[in-house]
Amino acid sequence: MLRELLAGLPSPWTEAVEGPGTWSPFDVVGHLIHGERTDWIPRVEHILRHGDAIPFPAFDREAMFAASRSASLQELLETFGRLRAENLDRLVALALTAEDLARRGRHPALGEVTLGQHLATWVAHDLGHLGQVVLVMARQYSEAVGPWRAYLSILGPA
Amino acid sequence: MLRELLAGLPSPWTEAVEGPGTWSPFDVVGHLIHGERTDWIPRVEHILRHGDAIPFPAFDREAMFAASRSASLQELLETFGRLRAENLDRLVALALTAEDLARRGRHPALGEVTLGQHLATWVAHDLGHLGQVVLVMARQYSEAVGPWRAYLSILGPA
Repeated sequence: MLRELLAGLPSPWTEAVEGPGTWSPFDVVGHLIHGERTDWIPRVEHILRHGDAIPFPAFDREAMFAASRSASLQELLETFGRLRAENLDRLVALALTAEDLARRGRHPALGEVTLGQHLATWVAHDLGHLGQVVLVMARQYSEAVGPWRAYLSILGPA
Repeated sequence: MLRELLAGLPSPWTEAVEGPGTWSPFDVVGHLIHGERTDWIPRVEHILRHGDAIPFPAFDREAMFAASRSASLQELLETFGRLRAENLDRLVALALTAEDLARRGRHPALGEVTLGQHLATWVAHDLGHLGQVVLVMARQYSEAVGPWRAYLSILGPA
């Protein structure tokens, strides 16, 4: 989906932000890559290995600002696509059972969580960042749509 | 993008709504089809032909509830993909100039608009409905994510 949305777009779309400290589509793809490397499957394996005896290592939500700096968006999209496919293969290979999904882990800030909650969060986190990308892109046209702004709730109040 | 997001998903995802009167992903795809048929390119041609002398015919934002009733989501996705591709071909064939983009039309409720504003609205409208689909899907997991809800702003307050 991110490839369909972003590949080949010029940088005013892909590097758009909503203000200081907010993330561009480029930043979001970098963040998703970091999640594939350090969060989603690694924490599944952490729960299966340690249960709630050892908290997860903390996840650095802004690691991509350094890690993606020299990459092109096209490279990031390819890296993310490859890592996600590998991680879904690993997930399938684990053949998790309903009992596994109820296994408990320990989040360093949130405390006790289950493996099932972690996997649901992987999905909702994807959708949240996809919504973020769509929102920041739409808002680049807040002025360009003229009077139609009144009908486009994604653009927020004028 | 909609194909990547929705094709093959079971109906609890594709027919999810947020409450009475809200739209499911299935409804949104039907609405986008109706826009391809009656709004985006037809109004471009209307402006080129009539300028602001004749208001656009009104657009029925809920026409899909009747029109899509007997279709499968897979059929709707294919229909939308085909219509969108045809309409983008028509747009390219018009070879609009900067002067054309400044041409004025008349919206039945909003009054005077330009062709450029109409085309920007096509883009922002796509993104708005994509955000709507992503949001309603994410919220199906509001409970499933457990304590992570506090970190997922797309899910709204608990």
